[in-house]
Amino acid sequence: MLTKEENEYITRVGPGTPMGNLFRHYWMPALLSHELPEPDGAPVQVRILGEDLVAYRDSGGQVGLLGEFCPHRKASLFLGRNEEHGLRCVYHGWKFDTTGACTDMPNEPAESNFRDKIRHTAYPCRDAGGVVWAWMGPRDRMPELPQFEWTLVPDTHRTVSKLYQANNWLQGVEGGIDSSHVSFLHSSRQSGAQGPTRTFGVGGLFSSTDTAPKFSLLETDYGFLIGASRTTNVQDLSYWRLTPFMLPFYTVIPGRISSGEQVYSGHAWVPIDDYSTWMVTYSWHPAEPIAQQRVHPAHYVPRDPATFKPLANRSNWYGLDRQMQKTENYTGIANGSDQDRAVQETMGPIVDRTTEHLGTSDTAVIAARRTLIRQAHDLESGREPAPAWNPAAFRLRSLSCELPAAYTIEQANTAFQARQPSPIA
Amino acid sequence: MLTKEENEYITRVGPGTPMGNLFRHYWMPALLSHELPEPDGAPVQVRILGEDLVAYRDSGGQVGLLGEFCPHRKASLFLGRNEEHGLRCVYHGWKFDTTGACTDMPNEPAESNFRDKIRHTAYPCRDAGGVVWAWMGPRDRMPELPQFEWTLVPDTHRTVSKLYQANNWLQGVEGGIDSSHVSFLHSSRQSGAQGPTRTFGVGGLFSSTDTAPKFSLLETDYGFLIGASRTTNVQDLSYWRLTPFMLPFYTVIPGRISSGEQVYSGHAWVPIDDYSTWMVTYSWHPAEPIAQQRVHPAHYVPRDPATFKPLANRSNWYGLDRQMQKTENYTGIANGSDQDRAVQETMGPIVDRTTEHLGTSDTAVIAARRTLIRQAHDLESGREPAPAWNPAAFRLRSLSCELPAAYTIEQANTAFQARQPSPIA
Amino acid sequence: MLTKEENEYITRVGPGTPMGNLFRHYWMPALLSHELPEPDGAPVQVRILGEDLVAYRDSGGQVGLLGEFCPHRKASLFLGRNEEHGLRCVYHGWKFDTTGACTDMPNEPAESNFRDKIRHTAYPCRDAGGVVWAWMGPRDRMPELPQFEWTLVPDTHRTVSKLYQANNWLQGVEGGIDSSHVSFLHSSRQSGAQGPTRTFGVGGLFSSTDTAPKFSLLETDYGFLIGASRTTNVQDLSYWRLTPFMLPFYTVIPGRISSGEQVYSGHAWVPIDDYSTWMVTYSWHPAEPIAQQRVHPAHYVPRDPATFKPLANRSNWYGLDRQMQKTENYTGIANGSDQDRAVQETMGPIVDRTTEHLGTSDTAVIAARRTLIRQAHDLESGREPAPAWNPAAFRLRSLSCELPAAYTIEQANTAFQARQPSPIA
Repeated sequence: MLTKEENEYITRVGPGTPMGNLFRHYWMPALLSHELPEPDGAPVQVRILGEDLVAYRDSGGQVGLLGEFCPHRKASLFLGRNEEHGLRCVYHGWKFDTTGACTDMPNEPAESNFRDKIRHTAYPCRDAGGVVWAWMGPRDRMPELPQFEWTLVPDTHRTVSKLYQANNWLQGVEGGIDSSHVSFLHSSRQSGAQGPTRTFGVGGLFSSTDTAPKFSLLETDYGFLIGASRTTNVQDLSYWRLTPFMLPFYTVIPGRISSGEQVYSGHAWVPIDDYSTWMVTYSWHPAEPIAQQRVHPAHYVPRDPATFKPLANRSNWYGLDRQMQKTENYTGIANGSDQDRAVQETMGPIVDRTTEHLGTSDTAVIAARRTLIRQAHDLESGREPAPAWNPAAFRLRSLSCELPAAYTIEQANTAFQARQPSPIA
Repeated sequence: MLTKEENEYITRVGPGTPMGNLFRHYWMPALLSHELPEPDGAPVQVRILGEDLVAYRDSGGQVGLLGEFCPHRKASLFLGRNEEHGLRCVYHGWKFDTTGACTDMPNEPAESNFRDKIRHTAYPCRDAGGVVWAWMGPRDRMPELPQFEWTLVPDTHRTVSKLYQANNWLQGVEGGIDSSHVSFLHSSRQSGAQGPTRTFGVGGLFSSTDTAPKFSLLETDYGFLIGASRTTNVQDLSYWRLTPFMLPFYTVIPGRISSGEQVYSGHAWVPIDDYSTWMVTYSWHPAEPIAQQRVHPAHYVPRDPATFKPLANRSNWYGLDRQMQKTENYTGIANGSDQDRAVQETMGPIVDRTTEHLGTSDTAVIAARRTLIRQAHDLESGREPAPAWNPAAFRLRSLSCELPAAYTIEQANTAFQARQPSPIA
Repeated sequence: MLTKEENEYITRVGPGTPMGNLFRHYWMPALLSHELPEPDGAPVQVRILGEDLVAYRDSGGQVGLLGEFCPHRKASLFLGRNEEHGLRCVYHGWKFDTTGACTDMPNEPAESNFRDKIRHTAYPCRDAGGVVWAWMGPRDRMPELPQFEWTLVPDTHRTVSKLYQANNWLQGVEGGIDSSHVSFLHSSRQSGAQGPTRTFGVGGLFSSTDTAPKFSLLETDYGFLIGASRTTNVQDLSYWRLTPFMLPFYTVIPGRISSGEQVYSGHAWVPIDDYSTWMVTYSWHPAEPIAQQRVHPAHYVPRDPATFKPLANRSNWYGLDRQMQKTENYTGIANGSDQDRAVQETMGPIVDRTTEHLGTSDTAVIAARRTLIRQAHDLESGREPAPAWNPAAFRLRSLSCELPAAYTIEQANTAFQARQPSPIA
C-alpha cells in the first residue's frame, strides 16, 4: 500500500517531476529503428515522458529528436520537410539539425543574426538493437548505452516490437516482476478451484504445481534479482525462476533451454506519459537466428500498424469469451499478452494503491517501488543513479531450473551468474 | 430556482454526499434480474450512485454485488471467474463470496492467515419484480424491500425494462411529476398556437382541453400525492390526475380503466452517477396478464441490447423530423419516451437551476426538491428517512377520473385511496 | 512573446472576459444567411463567443437569436417550433419573439401575469452580404453595420462560405496578417533550400523571389495597414502587398488585377469559443458577377454540409502526402486553405506564446496583439472602441503592386487609398 502522495510521487514522470528526473538519467527506448526506415524519410511524432517530440532520420542517417513545436511560432514540425541534413518547418522555412541548431531562417533578412539566438529542444539519439535510444537528461552527464545482450546480437538473432498500453508504466512493471500471477492469469486451467494445469519444469523430468511461490530478493548493481521458488514432485528440490529487474523498467523472462535452445524475452515499459505506455518486447537467441514461433506472444498481438494500438482492448473487453473461460483457460482471453494488458489497463489509468492489500507474493513489487522511490529521493539530494553509469551490468539473461529447496537467493545467484554471457572483450 | 449550492446539494449522490447518503437509506434497483440469467453465468458491470461494482449470480442463485476492483492489486473483477459459490479474480485467483469474504487465496502459503484479514465491499441484493435490488446503506439499518405492487404480482402481469439516460436523475424525476408538459411535449397538435388535440377523459363521455392544470399536493407517508385538475366540457366537473411521488424517485402514471383494463406504469430514475441515469419503467396489471400493446412506450424504445443506450439520442437529435413537427405532432419526435428524454438530456448533464423561472405549473417540482433536501438535512442531523421503514406505503396505483371541480386534494385523496389494493394479508 | 497572463487576456472571449467584452462592441458574423433559408423553417444551433444560442427566421423573415435554453425549465429551444412570429418551446409551449419577449405561456392560468416577467436573452440580428450579423453588446450602444464592400455588392458579385477550425481565433488572425509565410507554406517549391518557386508580380513584367519581406505598418481608423515589400528583378522597384487589418478580426487579400479583373477575398475569424473558430471567407468583384474559378481556395475545401467541418483535419493529418511534399509542393497538402489550417490547428487549441521567438517578419502579428490588448484595456477603463462607430472605415480593398523601393508606408498608403471604392453617396 502506498499513500496518495507516494503513489503520485512514483507514477508521475513529466518534466520536472522527481521520478521524471530519475528516468531522464537513463537512456529511453524512444521508438523502433524501422519507424524511420531511411534518410530524409517521413518524420514521426513521438511522445515520451509526457513530452511532445518529432523524430526524423537525417540525410546522413543520424536520428534527430526535436521538440514538436517550432520555436518561432510553434507550428508542428511533424508537418515539416526532412531534407538536406535538417528538418524544416513548413510555416516559415526555419530549419533545424539534430543538435537543435537553427541552420536556415529564410524569412528574415540575410544580415540578421537572429538565427544564432535560436536553440531548439533536441535529444541525442542512437540506434541499437532495432531501437532508437534517446538521452533526455543533462547533456554533460550522458553515460554509454546499457549493454543489453539483445542490442548486441546480430539482427537475425533478435525480434523487437512495441504495443500501446492505456495505463501508467508502473502497472506494467508490477505485472512483469510478479511471478505469482503466472499460475493463474496465464493458466490453462478450466477451473479456478483446482490445482493449476500450468506446470513448471525442464524437460518433463520434474514438475511443479505449487501456486504460492516463495520470493527472495538480492540487491544488485542493476536493480535486484528476483528468485521465485516452487516445490516440485521431488522432495528437497525446488523449481526456481531467477529474473533480473533492471532499472528503471526492464525485465527478462526465463528462456527455454530444455529443447536445446536458448531464447530469452523481456519487456521495457516506457512511459508515453503518466496515462499511457509503450510496452517494448525483445526476444533474442545469444548465438543463433531465432525461429519466429519461438518468441514471445506479445509479438503476435494484432495491432494497428500506424499507432501500435492492439485490436483487443478495453473497448471490446479484450475479446473475453465466457465459454472459453469455462472450458479452455483461466481468463477466456486467448493471447497471453492480452491477458496481462487486460488486468493492467482495467485497473484504471493510474491504479489507486492506497486501498490495495499486498501479501508475501508481492515481495518484488514492494521492492521495485522502494528502489525507484529511493533513487528518486537520492537524485533530489544530488546523487545520480549508479546503474546508469554501469552499462555492462545490463547484459543479463534469466534462468529457470531445479535447485535444492534449501538454497538461499545468494546460492541461487551463483547458478544465475553461470548462465550469463561472458563480458565484452 | 435554486442557488448554485442548493443545486449541487440536491443533485450529487456519490459516496459521502448528503443526498448520496439519503439515497443509500433506500433500496436501489441496481439492474434487471434477467441481466444475470443463470447461476455461475457471466458477471455484469454495474455503476450505481457513482460506485463501480460488479454483479454476479452465484452457484446458489444468490446475486452478489461487489466493488469492481479486487482488494489485492485492484484488477477488475468483471474479468473474473464466476464459479463454485464465488467470484474469483483472474490475476492471482483470490475468490469472494456474496458477503465480501475472501474464501480462497491460492497464491499465498497455505499456512497464511492473510485471507481472513480481507473483507471486500459487498452490498446485499434481492430479486423482486424482475429487478435486482441492492442495499448500499448501513448494514445494521436495512429495512424490508418496498412493497411496490408491480414487484408482488406474477411475472406474467408485469413488464420491466430500463434505458440509459445521459443526464442527472433529478431532471428525470422533475419531468415525471410534471403533469403540465403532457399537453405540449406529448401532444399530437400540429400547431402550437391552437388548443391541444391531446384531450383527456374516460370513455369519451367527458373531455378536457385545459392546458393549464391546477396543482394541489398532499404530504403522505411515501412522499406526496400530486393532484392535477383540468376543467372539462361539463361545468362543475374537473378531470383529475392523481399520481403519487414515492421517495426517492418513483412515479406511477394513471392507468387505463375505461376499456375495462387496469394497466399502470411508472418510472424510477436510478442514478448511475451524477451525470447519467437508468430510467427503469414498470408496467403491470394487478390481476391479469398484460397484453404487450397496452404498456408504456418506453418499453418499445429501440436500444443497444448490451448497453441499454437508446438509438435515438443527442448525437442524432432523437430523429427530430421538422416536417413531422409541422404536420403530425408537437415535437417531430415519434416516440413519447424519446420526447421526454430529448428535453431532459439537452438541458445539459446537470441543468442550471439558478436561472430558471418556475410558475404555478411547477408546484410538484418545487415540492419534490423541498422534500428531498429536507430528508437529506434530517439525515445529516441523524434522523433517518421514515418512508424507507414503511415498505407497505409504496404499494400504490394512480388514478385519473372526473371529480367535482370544487374538490380539495383531501377529498380527491378519498377517491385515490379507494383505488388502492387491499393490504397484504 | 507574451506572458501567460497576457496570452490568457488576449485569447479568452467568453462572457465577462475583457476581450469578450471588446468583441461584443463589434457586430459578429453569427451564421450564413442561407442556413436559415425560409421563414418558419428549422432553427439552427449557434455558438458564438462561448454562448449557446439558437437562431431562427420568423414568419416575417426576421432572424431571431435567442439563448438556447428556455428560461422556464431550461429545455433546448433548438427542439422548438418556429411558427407564427415566434419560437415555441416544446416542453410547455412557452413562445418567444425575436426581442426575447414571451408572447404565449399556455401552461399557466389565463389570468396569470407571470408571462410579462419573463425576458429571454435575445440578440438583434441583420442579414447583410449573405451573413447574419448579431449584436451581442449593450443594446443602447449599437452602431450601424460595418460597410464591408462585399456586403454591399449584389449577391451575384459575391461568394461567402465558412469552415470550422479547431483552434483559438487569434491563431487564425495571426496567420492571416502574416505575409511572410506565403513564400513557404503556400509555395510550390520542391526543395526548401532553394529559392521560392512562388514568385510575385503583376503581368509577368516584374517578379520577386525575395523570401524575407520588409514590413511596415500604419495605424488607421479601422486598425492598421500592413505593408510587406519585396525586392524584385528590377533595381529600385519593390513588390508591395498592402493589406488592411480591420478590427477585431478581418483581413483582405490582394486581388488579381493583372488579367483585368478585380476579385478580392478575405477572412473573418469568429470565435465559437476559446478553442474553436468559424473561418468566414468572402470573395467579391466590385462591379461584376464573379466566376467561381476566380475565388479563394477556402471556398472549395470539402466539408460536412451539416457541421461545416472540413474533411481534411487533424485526424487524417490534412491528407499530408510525403511524396507530394518531395516532388510537388512545400507541404504535401494540396489545398492552400488546408495548409493554413494545418499549421494553425496543430499548434494546439491555444498556442503557448510564452516560448515563441518573434522576428522582424512578425511585425504585424505583434501590432495586432498590441492593438487588441490596448482596446480591451481602454474598454475596461470605459473607452469604447472607436472603429465600431466608424462603419464606413471598413469599406476596403487591398493592393499588390510595384512601387519605388524607397517608398515609406505613408507613401504606399497613397496608392492604397487610390484603390479604394468611392464613399457611399
